[in-house]
Amino acid sequence: MSVAADIDILVSEVGPRDGLQSIGRVMPTEAKKAWIAAEAAAGVREIEVGSFVPAKLLPQLADTAEIVAFARTIPGLHVAALVPNFKGAQAAVEAGAHKITLPLSASESHSLKNLRRTHAQVLDEARQIGEMLKALPPERRPEFEGALSTAFGCTIEGVVPEAKVVELAVALMEAGCSEVGLSDTTGYANPTQVKRLTQAVWAAVGRDKLTGLHLHNTRGQGLANVVAALDIGLTTLDASLGGIGGCPFAPGASGNIVTEDLVFLLEAMGLRTGISIPKLLEVRRLVAEALPGEQLYGFVPDAGVPKGFRPAS
Amino acid sequence: MSVAADIDILVSEVGPRDGLQSIGRVMPTEAKKAWIAAEAAAGVREIEVGSFVPAKLLPQLADTAEIVAFARTIPGLHVAALVPNFKGAQAAVEAGAHKITLPLSASESHSLKNLRRTHAQVLDEARQIGEMLKALPPERRPEFEGALSTAFGCTIEGVVPEAKVVELAVALMEAGCSEVGLSDTTGYANPTQVKRLTQAVWAAVGRDKLTGLHLHNTRGQGLANVVAALDIGLTTLDASLGGIGGCPFAPGASGNIVTEDLVFLLEAMGLRTGISIPKLLEVRRLVAEALPGEQLYGFVPDAGVPKGFRPAS
Repeated sequence: MSVAADIDILVSEVGPRDGLQSIGRVMPTEAKKAWIAAEAAAGVREIEVGSFVPAKLLPQLADTAEIVAFARTIPGLHVAALVPNFKGAQAAVEAGAHKITLPLSASESHSLKNLRRTHAQVLDEARQIGEMLKALPPERRPEFEGALSTAFGCTIEGVVPEAKVVELAVALMEAGCSEVGLSDTTGYANPTQVKRLTQAVWAAVGRDKLTGLHLHNTRGQGLANVVAALDIGLTTLDASLGGIGGCPFAPGASGNIVTEDLVFLLEAMGLRTGISIPKLLEVRRLVAEALPGEQLYGFVPDAGVPKGFRPAS
Repeated sequence: MSVAADIDILVSEVGPRDGLQSIGRVMPTEAKKAWIAAEAAAGVREIEVGSFVPAKLLPQLADTAEIVAFARTIPGLHVAALVPNFKGAQAAVEAGAHKITLPLSASESHSLKNLRRTHAQVLDEARQIGEMLKALPPERRPEFEGALSTAFGCTIEGVVPEAKVVELAVALMEAGCSEVGLSDTTGYANPTQVKRLTQAVWAAVGRDKLTGLHLHNTRGQGLANVVAALDIGLTTLDASLGGIGGCPFAPGASGNIVTEDLVFLLEAMGLRTGISIPKLLEVRRLVAEALPGEQLYGFVPDAGVPKGFRPAS
């Protein structure tokens, strides 16, 4: 979404979706609601609250419709949900999501392995979703993002050609998406690549159609990539509270970048997020209590903010 | 030192000094030599190998003279050492260091608490050292860096005024230093501040007199700050193998930025360090064996480099 006038950067929390789908246990619905409410109260303006996948595939997210409906009641919160296909998009619209995100893996091998679908099949779903949304009255029509996963490289294919990413971004826009996103699913991105690929996609679909990135911290490069993103003027950054989720596969190597560390970076740089760091750290404690024994990541929660620190917000 | 023609960025390893002084145990002299030799063989061009402090204060570094003499025998290696005062500088010259670094804490409270000396007293030492070096024949004269610690903030004073840092940088140059450095001793720095403070010091002492930074990762911002440093054209970055040292005070919060993660960042960005990542990871194994049970940090050692990764060097 476009960034509100009173903030400079939109931090989009993906923990309740990307985080919870990556861990084995199921967080009770009430605990999810408490998390989302507390994080919105801390100033977070957008939260991806779930995914409309079949419950047998991801029992962790089986209550997504209820969570979306709840999140919709929080004033000022932009409620996002992942949808794997047309059917999921229908359910998301039904539940009232403000934004739906359809992932498309830039690496076709990854797409086949993880989603069992070719690029053409996913683009077909995108077209069907686009048609369905077009028929809705504007006030019920959610934003529709096509999210290019493995955009910065793939653990199966290795290098993913930038021309392929650009081609798929164009195809997603043509299929009816209102915007596209780039995801560093594998933690392969570097700052130079972040700038180059974003600018290539901008050249093809327009600068206003790609405003954000989903970065991972698998190789400790997450915030370095954020600095590159800020440098070229991107304004939306996904992050996960406590760095939960995002396919961590090595001890200490979180997947998603950590919301707490990201907000500190931005506020220290003088960029307003609208988020209170002390309140965010309270949310972390709440989530830690709801997920006892689960590994949380991040440096700022342990080290605290600097003495005399003045946030921008 | 100035960066050699065949590399873009000089990664200066500080582990054998900053790392080893921060941990309780004493690494045997032969293990230190093996570490330094292996890291030089991996392509690292500059290593701070020790500190000429009294052995009773830092028994970990009591063998610094022997280590400097050994490191001098490694072809192409720039051998740096810390000196707390004039006496230490004499010993460093005697041992044959290519570069000596005198720390001066920008926060006077920190200086008094940690070194029991005022700014004026440290600047007096700098002047004495400067005089001594001037009298040496050029071929025996080491580079002389004045390193401004707590330049980005202090755990006692909080915000350290930038005007104070600039004033001390000028004073160090007037006292006879050949260059100055800025250290984020406390992990307080942010990318905006890195640029602003570096440029302020450049305006006062000349761009060629400040070429590098010593950054910490206490709040997970180390590599984000590196990206800012690269953006304005700094060419020397300190780091510690495995992130050892640098006053870690929280679990998972390493002090120094991790050499392995830094070299990956730079090489991924297309910047030549001259360093082989596989060989660097071998050195890490060697250091881990020499320090059993010691916590090492870093993400790249766990996650590995991306599939199809092509380093710049």
